[in-house]
Amino acid sequence: MLDELRPIGRDPGTGGYRRFGWTAADLACREWFAGQAAARGMTCEADGNGNLWAWWGDPGEGAVATGSHLDSVPDGGGYDGPLGVISAFCAVDELRARGVRPARPLAVVAFAEEEGARFGVACLGSRLLTGALDPAWALARTDAAGISLAAAMRSAGADPAAAGPDPERLARLAAFVELHLEQGRGLVGSGAPVGLATGIWPHGRWRYRFAGEANHAGTTRLADRRDPMLTFANTVLAARKKARQSGALATFGRVVVAPNATNALPSAVDGWLDARAPDGATLDGLVAAIERAAAERGQRDGVQVAVTAESVTPGVTFDAGLRQRLQAALGGLPELATGAGHDAGVLAGHLPAAMLFVRNPTGVSHSPAEHADDADCLAGVLALADSLAALAG
Amino acid sequence: MLDELRPIGRDPGTGGYRRFGWTAADLACREWFAGQAAARGMTCEADGNGNLWAWWGDPGEGAVATGSHLDSVPDGGGYDGPLGVISAFCAVDELRARGVRPARPLAVVAFAEEEGARFGVACLGSRLLTGALDPAWALARTDAAGISLAAAMRSAGADPAAAGPDPERLARLAAFVELHLEQGRGLVGSGAPVGLATGIWPHGRWRYRFAGEANHAGTTRLADRRDPMLTFANTVLAARKKARQSGALATFGRVVVAPNATNALPSAVDGWLDARAPDGATLDGLVAAIERAAAERGQRDGVQVAVTAESVTPGVTFDAGLRQRLQAALGGLPELATGAGHDAGVLAGHLPAAMLFVRNPTGVSHSPAEHADDADCLAGVLALADSLAALAG
Repeated sequence: MLDELRPIGRDPGTGGYRRFGWTAADLACREWFAGQAAARGMTCEADGNGNLWAWWGDPGEGAVATGSHLDSVPDGGGYDGPLGVISAFCAVDELRARGVRPARPLAVVAFAEEEGARFGVACLGSRLLTGALDPAWALARTDAAGISLAAAMRSAGADPAAAGPDPERLARLAAFVELHLEQGRGLVGSGAPVGLATGIWPHGRWRYRFAGEANHAGTTRLADRRDPMLTFANTVLAARKKARQSGALATFGRVVVAPNATNALPSAVDGWLDARAPDGATLDGLVAAIERAAAERGQRDGVQVAVTAESVTPGVTFDAGLRQRLQAALGGLPELATGAGHDAGVLAGHLPAAMLFVRNPTGVSHSPAEHADDADCLAGVLALADSLAALAG
Repeated sequence: MLDELRPIGRDPGTGGYRRFGWTAADLACREWFAGQAAARGMTCEADGNGNLWAWWGDPGEGAVATGSHLDSVPDGGGYDGPLGVISAFCAVDELRARGVRPARPLAVVAFAEEEGARFGVACLGSRLLTGALDPAWALARTDAAGISLAAAMRSAGADPAAAGPDPERLARLAAFVELHLEQGRGLVGSGAPVGLATGIWPHGRWRYRFAGEANHAGTTRLADRRDPMLTFANTVLAARKKARQSGALATFGRVVVAPNATNALPSAVDGWLDARAPDGATLDGLVAAIERAAAERGQRDGVQVAVTAESVTPGVTFDAGLRQRLQAALGGLPELATGAGHDAGVLAGHLPAAMLFVRNPTGVSHSPAEHADDADCLAGVLALADSLAALAG
């Protein structure tokens, strides 16, 4: 199945994926999903937020859902997201091959725009579904070309008026299990191909605006400069240092410079901080320390620093009861936390949710080099089938 | 005249100019130039490289030329370039008002694409004219949209086959004087509204490619990262420090990040170094020291650093004889060197060339905030008229 998805939304230059919500590549992925459901005689539907649901058995109370997402970051790999959806369909095949007839309805789900690559809002589909996002606000978000989510949905044939919380759908779900490629090397030393998530670190995105003064790079004396690139550079290094000191993660992966000309001092540099920590207090301390360092350096450089929190997500601890049931069914998986947000983390506030991680030999993710061994993917499918059998069987 | 040019190519958001070679804004500036020539009964022609020439008297041997350029950097100011062209036309008016009848042909020139904002090649028109650039190479340069210089010229009605060196035109010129807004604060302390350039610092552009490994910002342990943003940031700060230590200038004003996503470690960061120094040895030492610092930090970060010289321009000393004649005519102007490249610097290798600088009260240039006082602009026109009278009168 990975082979069928492989060509969709792939950049021929980088080999990376560009499957952004409601683009042609996304619609091709959705068609693939509908085809997989049809091939298994599963009823396929899109909810009002663009999340896809394929049902084994009539949709109803006490359902067990599994799945992940099909969209990607810019130049992402082929596993982050799709592995969880493909494994879900494979687990259905495995259960049928075993002759299992689930007592509960079983759904395979593909959540919309999990990476937030197009509209800057991660877990867009699941957060709209649970009511964590105001639909009016979300529909007004625009992509880099100025197209709003509402317009993008409309042009893809979806009705933006249907977007928003769907408590009835949520209430029908007894549990959600998401299988995902691990995005670090936590399982590499464990000897196990599959692990169970304990929770998700609190994390967020902060936009730093460094405002200086545009000027000629060839004639402005160093003493007369108010160069925001210096303040940005110092903040990048400070963030790394403070993350190391607090056992957390801090990254500046995105930067936009104005006017971005070789022979002009920038008037402004915008940089986005991604920060994550094992607990909320550590995260708060880290974020405050980086902001302090930026402000101090800005004063030295004559540069104004303004920081805006674009999204802050509290930590998630996955349901202990569900974890125990899965450990009992799967026989003692290694447990680990992750710094990455997931749809399972969004749903965890509303129903018992869990995550299975498949071993990542290099730890590389969000990159064309992302990889998992076939044997480990197969082990993931079997673990997911065992999980579903235990929960719905 | 500044008022007539003011609306052309101006970004309504920033108030800055975006007059890039062969764009609609550039064509509007060219039309303005032709209109100014016609209003004065001057013959207007474009040479094969898109430089505009307005002649007072028949084009011929021993001509004296003056002018500058009309294009701008992205979000540039209204003075850098146009002030020299406008002052040239005003100086013609002034000479006529004084009843001067020049013994030599006199030309007002507007050189094409001096800033290099569209095709990345500074002083494009004057360097093609003097043969400093291979026309085949230059015509193949592309802008950000992939449009070549040849295609851009063609779509503006110019014949790219005519581009290239024009030694006959150069041989007809006895002298060139360029008036330009000063781009620093060198004249602010002098009490003089106009100064004379001694020369142009050697300068160049170097492209730094920092290649690391794309990965997930939320899950990749700091120890497992190969983050090129760190190496870039450290190089920005090292460049500033080493420039300060050597009495030179170094700037990173342009940066391009891939994939430039908030939650992904970059696979690569490209940064452009603009470096300038009072002499070639200092520049060489500075550039080598910055490259060394980048390589050392790259080794620590697991990031590969590759440096390519995109353009390196040796220093220029303006013709001593011409400077003496102008000083005699203008009565002891303050003299100063500049770090900025100019068409006069390109022409200086082929004929006596000189530059007049008009005082810049803030030193700001390449910015919408660029400014000169009206009284100083008028002093510039009178100094230019006196210069032309001395050279051509």
